[in-house]
Amino acid sequence: MKKIAAIGTGNIGKAVAKAIELSPDMELLGFIRRKEEKVRGFENIPAVRRISDLPEKPDGAIICLPSRLVKEAEEELLKNGIYTADAFDIHEELLPLRQRLSAAAKMGKVSAVIGAGWDPGLDSVIRTLMLAALPQGITYTNFGPGTSMGHSAAIRQIPGICDAVSFTLPQGFGKHSRKIYAVLKKDADKNAVEHAILNDEYFEHDECSVEFVESTLPFCCTGHSAEIFRGGNICGTGGNRLSFGLCGDNPAFTAQLLVGAMRAAFLQKPGAYFMPEIPPCDFCSEGWEKTL
Amino acid sequence: MKKIAAIGTGNIGKAVAKAIELSPDMELLGFIRRKEEKVRGFENIPAVRRISDLPEKPDGAIICLPSRLVKEAEEELLKNGIYTADAFDIHEELLPLRQRLSAAAKMGKVSAVIGAGWDPGLDSVIRTLMLAALPQGITYTNFGPGTSMGHSAAIRQIPGICDAVSFTLPQGFGKHSRKIYAVLKKDADKNAVEHAILNDEYFEHDECSVEFVESTLPFCCTGHSAEIFRGGNICGTGGNRLSFGLCGDNPAFTAQLLVGAMRAAFLQKPGAYFMPEIPPCDFCSEGWEKTL
Repeated sequence: MKKIAAIGTGNIGKAVAKAIELSPDMELLGFIRRKEEKVRGFENIPAVRRISDLPEKPDGAIICLPSRLVKEAEEELLKNGIYTADAFDIHEELLPLRQRLSAAAKMGKVSAVIGAGWDPGLDSVIRTLMLAALPQGITYTNFGPGTSMGHSAAIRQIPGICDAVSFTLPQGFGKHSRKIYAVLKKDADKNAVEHAILNDEYFEHDECSVEFVESTLPFCCTGHSAEIFRGGNICGTGGNRLSFGLCGDNPAFTAQLLVGAMRAAFLQKPGAYFMPEIPPCDFCSEGWEKTL
Repeated sequence: MKKIAAIGTGNIGKAVAKAIELSPDMELLGFIRRKEEKVRGFENIPAVRRISDLPEKPDGAIICLPSRLVKEAEEELLKNGIYTADAFDIHEELLPLRQRLSAAAKMGKVSAVIGAGWDPGLDSVIRTLMLAALPQGITYTNFGPGTSMGHSAAIRQIPGICDAVSFTLPQGFGKHSRKIYAVLKKDADKNAVEHAILNDEYFEHDECSVEFVESTLPFCCTGHSAEIFRGGNICGTGGNRLSFGLCGDNPAFTAQLLVGAMRAAFLQKPGAYFMPEIPPCDFCSEGWEKTL
């Protein structure tokens, strides 16, 4: 039974706690959060400010922080000999992140499975398999309509923002627009905040529209979906197609994949890995042989 | 550049030859077949009866034989220090096959990737990933309508049969019926042959109908398709669904997956592996990082 710490107590942190409760091979040792205060719904679980404040040293830690806060937190854990999993989602920064965390993991003689949500993560594995099965071809990934956790969290980090929800609206063939519902802090400069959102690296590539609202509550739906399509030629034959679809609760899927990634981390040689570099059976607690 | 032998020259053997031609990291050293005679369409490739008759020892061999002929052929190759890949498709015999081939592989200090077509194979990987992402749930795999290579090859092994094609007809929720077009050998006993087909382990579990025809030519379509669905609960949330679809040329997909499995075999520690036990990136010749 592996002892796990959840770093962060947002949507993902709470969903990770539930996923661990339902896992036969893990137990939740505690939450790490900024204020030393019990987490609503998990009053029996310790919630502390530092790993060293937990009742004992955890075997692993699941990083449930906004992507920009992942690097330093995870690097420290790895150097300290704690296995990790994260759902870092800034696609362009994945390769440098691996390099940095791989060095830390080798120093601590442990492993990290990184970028392990559903995209990047599960979808990356699917796209890798599609590339293997259909090496000549074209892949499209369409998201939504649904709530992006990563984009919503990124807006909440912007000064002047109190709360925000970002919806992803598929325009077809891999293009997306985004609708953002944001609550301003008192005295915040509306124009400056809107400019900061639209120029953030999470948003600058897409058509986005921002609406300032009194509360995000009417927009707090956690459902999301994705479709991946690949068509191409193999061995001189055309008309070959592969497709993958996912729909469901976004934090729940992310949390379950993080728990699978955490499980897999314990089985790898020291280093940092992306999900396509891990044997898929390593993500399962049991029963994968029945899928043969 | 790895040097590969194709064992067998049927639909799969020929498709494997084409897939290797299009692979940047492999070359086809030759075919192994019963009669020492050039393969139509591949007149520039040696076709010999024994591995030792090839111009040099191959690094790897892709087994393109009907499943029942796989074991012994592959065991010999592995003991002889040649890496292998097969698309063995009798689901119930997969675990004993691994045990047997794993021993041979360790003896020869090489590896085998087995059951590596599209089902078992790619579909097994997808089902494993679905289990990891959605541990509480239900999975259905539906095949067809389309031509089953394994079932067609199995019938062609039955005495009294000259040629045969077996169509898989999906009845929904994992149930299938089969329509068989078979050409009898002169003087064969029609009833005895039909009885042998219907009681074969490939067919005994499904509703099957056999039609004896003059020629299989009007029925020789190589297209096939599959759909996998999994729905379930995660972290206490319902309404979560995953789906996967494949449609295309059956021998071409099988061959391309076999070539990926062969590539992956070279990267594993001595032993025999199923596709869900292999890092998906190992199946690709290049470019998988772009899928992140």
